[in-house]
Amino acid sequence: MEKSMALFTDLYEVTMAQSYFKMGNIMATFELFVRRLPSNRGYLIAAGLEDVCNYLLNFRFDKNDLEFLEEKGFEKNFLKFLSRVRFTGDMWALPEGELVFQNEPIIRITAPIIEAQFFETFIINAINFQTLITTKASRIVNSAKGRPIIDFGSRRAHGVDAGLKAARASYIGGCIGTSNVLAGKLYGIPIFGTMAHSYIEAFSSEREAFKAWLRTEGIDTVLLIDTYDTLRGVKNAIEAVEELTGRKELKGVRMDSGDMLSLSKEVRRFLDEAGFNSTKIFVSSGLDEYVIDEYLSKGAQIDVFGVGSSLVTSDDAPKTDMVYKLAESEENGRLVPRMKIAEGEKATLPGAKQIFRVEEDGKYVKDILGLTDENLNGERKLIQIFKDGRLVYKLPKLDEIREKAKKELEKLPEKYRRIRNPEAYPVEVSDKVMDLGRQLMRKLLP
Amino acid sequence: MEKSMALFTDLYEVTMAQSYFKMGNIMATFELFVRRLPSNRGYLIAAGLEDVCNYLLNFRFDKNDLEFLEEKGFEKNFLKFLSRVRFTGDMWALPEGELVFQNEPIIRITAPIIEAQFFETFIINAINFQTLITTKASRIVNSAKGRPIIDFGSRRAHGVDAGLKAARASYIGGCIGTSNVLAGKLYGIPIFGTMAHSYIEAFSSEREAFKAWLRTEGIDTVLLIDTYDTLRGVKNAIEAVEELTGRKELKGVRMDSGDMLSLSKEVRRFLDEAGFNSTKIFVSSGLDEYVIDEYLSKGAQIDVFGVGSSLVTSDDAPKTDMVYKLAESEENGRLVPRMKIAEGEKATLPGAKQIFRVEEDGKYVKDILGLTDENLNGERKLIQIFKDGRLVYKLPKLDEIREKAKKELEKLPEKYRRIRNPEAYPVEVSDKVMDLGRQLMRKLLP
Repeated sequence: MEKSMALFTDLYEVTMAQSYFKMGNIMATFELFVRRLPSNRGYLIAAGLEDVCNYLLNFRFDKNDLEFLEEKGFEKNFLKFLSRVRFTGDMWALPEGELVFQNEPIIRITAPIIEAQFFETFIINAINFQTLITTKASRIVNSAKGRPIIDFGSRRAHGVDAGLKAARASYIGGCIGTSNVLAGKLYGIPIFGTMAHSYIEAFSSEREAFKAWLRTEGIDTVLLIDTYDTLRGVKNAIEAVEELTGRKELKGVRMDSGDMLSLSKEVRRFLDEAGFNSTKIFVSSGLDEYVIDEYLSKGAQIDVFGVGSSLVTSDDAPKTDMVYKLAESEENGRLVPRMKIAEGEKATLPGAKQIFRVEEDGKYVKDILGLTDENLNGERKLIQIFKDGRLVYKLPKLDEIREKAKKELEKLPEKYRRIRNPEAYPVEVSDKVMDLGRQLMRKLLP
Repeated sequence: MEKSMALFTDLYEVTMAQSYFKMGNIMATFELFVRRLPSNRGYLIAAGLEDVCNYLLNFRFDKNDLEFLEEKGFEKNFLKFLSRVRFTGDMWALPEGELVFQNEPIIRITAPIIEAQFFETFIINAINFQTLITTKASRIVNSAKGRPIIDFGSRRAHGVDAGLKAARASYIGGCIGTSNVLAGKLYGIPIFGTMAHSYIEAFSSEREAFKAWLRTEGIDTVLLIDTYDTLRGVKNAIEAVEELTGRKELKGVRMDSGDMLSLSKEVRRFLDEAGFNSTKIFVSSGLDEYVIDEYLSKGAQIDVFGVGSSLVTSDDAPKTDMVYKLAESEENGRLVPRMKIAEGEKATLPGAKQIFRVEEDGKYVKDILGLTDENLNGERKLIQIFKDGRLVYKLPKLDEIREKAKKELEKLPEKYRRIRNPEAYPVEVSDKVMDLGRQLMRKLLP
């Protein structure tokens, strides 16, 4: 992403910017967080920061952007000002691969309010989606108890960008790779794939199709056996290999339909009886963490899972309530805490905050949300990414992020990791933050 | 999208292409369709064709793409062949804005199989998502019974591309516009937005914030009244307008939290009692077709809805089972029908097909899926888009597509349009298609 995405923003950011431009571009702090974890989620894994960094580095309004805003009625002197706007502030963030819980800042930005406010739409867009998919991937990976998971979802992702980002997020979450070739090229993720049903159908019989494939691709390949009838398919596969090579070796067979639980057991038996003991069974279609958990608990004979739609749309939780909220703004030359009170659950915690994560015997036991200048127990999880508009953080390699996610998740007790009805990880709020909140409430709603 | 997205494909398309390259690049026909409509959907509205056209026009592998494939082990002579591959085939499709039902081809492509197969991932990606969102938008628009709906979802869409495409799809589905500025610029969609909570919070009191805003923006604006307490908020808004202008006029107030049903009635009463009868009530947060339907059935006083996350993720149905399947392939120099049999629901209908839509008294009564050379009752809905690789279709303007969607939906009886448990629109399969299927089954599973 080298092009500026400054105009990927909501119109109200621009109308507010024009108002601030006239009244004074005060300093402000915004924090990005989710109020509640989506259902059945006991944790989230933060992801998307790299895109946010690139976005901030490239942030500017080009001539076309400004002309469009002029058409929309914005004033010339404001647009002249906008043409010079760059990100000049500070950003603190949870690195990608770190665990995050309810109300915890994932990103904190302090900058002139016109800048900081503009970033809202893009930052939520980038972090919300990749965090959702990384988390979904980690759940699916955990459900497979060590068996590899491959992202097969590009076609059902919500657009091209989602297909690519889902491949990256899935890899961070523990998948071994993706079927998406472009994601492989852009991110260096391992890519997987062999044949589709259309290949089999393009021949007058399944056995002919297998033989044609084996002739060009050899036996280090995966044959798709369910185009017509899975059990005939596995026999055809076995016989095609034996006939062509005289060997009892094939990397794998794949099933993409039918009752996978019982079929996988029969396919395993057929393979073993024919001496194809090392041949792996790949399964795709309709999979998610719940289905995989059920299959494995009932003894399914599956070695590798290809997961598509559910993974890349996080279909049981396709959205979070992620927001980017004002925590401080300037008054009489200094930053003072701000909050939204509102009705119901939409109140926010005031002040610039830090996450303090408390570990005991190698396991995380609780987090405390405190003010940045507090000295609380626990590791400070937000680190500085930008200082005065300069990137002061070395973006880690994708494999490092993936490793980080794995290690962090291992430190989280199992009761918070369950795929159904996990317990809520304790996130305490420091006394200072609570006091600030009470003071502000009294002032704002006297 | 001027850049080629050829590499946005699944690896198996490339491995199959290499195999076809060695054996012969036969002609083939693929059809794109959904097997079943998602839950609570009685129809879908096709969208995304414009992106597919641009994709096909720009389809080519550039030097970088080919180098990457070489690294991945593909053979030099195959890659040399790939470097020259362009789309040279025919495409028929349902124009954007047309209704589509289960098993009906949305797109049909006939081309050398290496080309046709490569497009699978991108085409499903483009059509699946935009069709989902256009359909979701039309449901939400219908639930609002004439009240305007605005897309507020960019931030919660699955990536940047999804944010933009969702804005376009929402507009086709009947929304009056979007909050996304870039979507406004790219597609010419009306854009909407005024202020966020952070603006209010950045002042020491809500009333001060309103006055500052009114001073710079005038009264043709929407004040956000729920930052601290909605009913105090509306009073502050009324008093700020009166104090500054002496008038009883304001375009609107917006609520984004709380019990909107009861609050909207109280806010309406406050406004009316103060003489602000023409001031409209805007509501956002947590809306979808089910919530809007409930609010309105209970007498909520809401004039305009801003809908975000649910709209752009189609959260009650974030995926379809859309597939792109072989319908014919070449054998002995002519195209012969093909099908997948498989277990369960994944069988396909053989042959190149057309949708015949039957209308009576201005309403659609049923569709018939027939072969392209059949002469059945009803209007042929698939039209030719590409011929021999040339675009022979004039892409309609966005407003024309939007108007088309509206008119088509009006022709669909209400029982198929209900937002809950709609009846299934009848899609019959012609005798010829059924006969072909039976013949093929006998041949493939003797």
